[in-house]
Amino acid sequence: MNKIALGLEYDGTNYHGWQSQDHLNTLQSSVETALSTVANHPVSVVCAGRTDAGVHALGQVVHFDSEAPRTLDNWVMGGNAHLPDSTAIRWARIVDETFHARYSALARHYYYVIYNHPIRSSIFRHRAAWWCMPLNEHWMQAGANYLLGEHDFTSFRGINCQAKKPVRTIHQLSVKRQQDFIIIKVTANAFLHHMVRNIAGVLIAIGEGKKAPLWALEVLHVCDRKKAGITAPPTGLYFAKVEYPEKYALPTMPITLQNEIFAF
Amino acid sequence: MNKIALGLEYDGTNYHGWQSQDHLNTLQSSVETALSTVANHPVSVVCAGRTDAGVHALGQVVHFDSEAPRTLDNWVMGGNAHLPDSTAIRWARIVDETFHARYSALARHYYYVIYNHPIRSSIFRHRAAWWCMPLNEHWMQAGANYLLGEHDFTSFRGINCQAKKPVRTIHQLSVKRQQDFIIIKVTANAFLHHMVRNIAGVLIAIGEGKKAPLWALEVLHVCDRKKAGITAPPTGLYFAKVEYPEKYALPTMPITLQNEIFAF
Repeated sequence: MNKIALGLEYDGTNYHGWQSQDHLNTLQSSVETALSTVANHPVSVVCAGRTDAGVHALGQVVHFDSEAPRTLDNWVMGGNAHLPDSTAIRWARIVDETFHARYSALARHYYYVIYNHPIRSSIFRHRAAWWCMPLNEHWMQAGANYLLGEHDFTSFRGINCQAKKPVRTIHQLSVKRQQDFIIIKVTANAFLHHMVRNIAGVLIAIGEGKKAPLWALEVLHVCDRKKAGITAPPTGLYFAKVEYPEKYALPTMPITLQNEIFAF
Repeated sequence: MNKIALGLEYDGTNYHGWQSQDHLNTLQSSVETALSTVANHPVSVVCAGRTDAGVHALGQVVHFDSEAPRTLDNWVMGGNAHLPDSTAIRWARIVDETFHARYSALARHYYYVIYNHPIRSSIFRHRAAWWCMPLNEHWMQAGANYLLGEHDFTSFRGINCQAKKPVRTIHQLSVKRQQDFIIIKVTANAFLHHMVRNIAGVLIAIGEGKKAPLWALEVLHVCDRKKAGITAPPTGLYFAKVEYPEKYALPTMPITLQNEIFAF
């Protein structure tokens, strides 16, 4: 029996999120169907973090078990041949039995991308959340700084969150502007349900000037979701990367988009 | 009667190209329907360059006439409210009666983006053409250099091309690599049908090493489409920008995507 880890990239636009649901198009069922075909036996996958409908992944990681005599290339190429083009397996590695895509993860990285312009974009409509009011990224960063470290994130927790505890540790939370785009990058040991989108919602209110940066701290302390901001739309959210102990030697993310592609 | 110029950005993935066709979803009919609703009278638009099915635009330009008392904001905001989210009006300007979106254009800029990686990408599946074999961008640039200037581009002309003459002038043709992406940028006074995709097809054969850079010159001289390469897929093609005489004072492209958004 081999335990295999895969890196997945997907466009979440037309999926009902990660988790299998009856009669709905989900990433889990799509990936399990493709891998079961390659394996010629039923395959169940466990992911590093479930994503909601409309949320994308650049570096989702899953693991599964199989006795089928397949090479790593078989899993990648064969899996991709049986997946819709909105999902791609980017790499495969054999891992030892101690590996678990979810429990072995040391940290998760998410990006939240906002297209901040008075006029909507068609090219980026599924790649960034559109916000038409001007956002000040320096105010947003000032607010973000209050969220760094270990805290009770109850105010940023979605109502359907199934986590046992609301305490998480944010290692990094940066807000940067690239011309008309604002990119929020957040790294934490783990995330509560809707946590990144709820953080984005608070930072957007601060960026618009409706709230002062200190409001992020007040929201954190009050431990009440109803006192926080909106849940920002899923369109701008990317599950970017998962960190695991070095001993597993998993690849870091292969896909990059550099400037000049659309810069002119 | 006002003559109005509009800048259009669109994701061509789900359109049957620019030109109106019975019962098909085209950009022209989509834009005319939206503007006719705003104007409350039938509106016909003329574009700077027709694009094929699957081809995108960052800076398509159209003009139309209307007696309706509308502000420029009315045309932009109202038009966008009636357009599907795959098309956006980015700006509107009043132009004098001498302006013609097609005949006034001095130069057109196209980009052709290739995702050059052994594994396909899901996020970029509609934004770049995927080429799995390694491409050498220096060989491609060497081949591209032979095409600069005024030439008979019969070998690069699609079979359905309706242009009277096959002579065009290429002002710029650059091939650059940004990590796993290859970006071809080409500027000419005008283009023949499929000309950019046919140039990309020749440069891809050179980049793979199947042909020497000098082959681009041989293809040019033979004036025979059947002696050239493939027509590269539409997915990677962007109608980026149109240049007009300064007197019309039209905006240059508003949309940019900078690095770091997906760079990590």
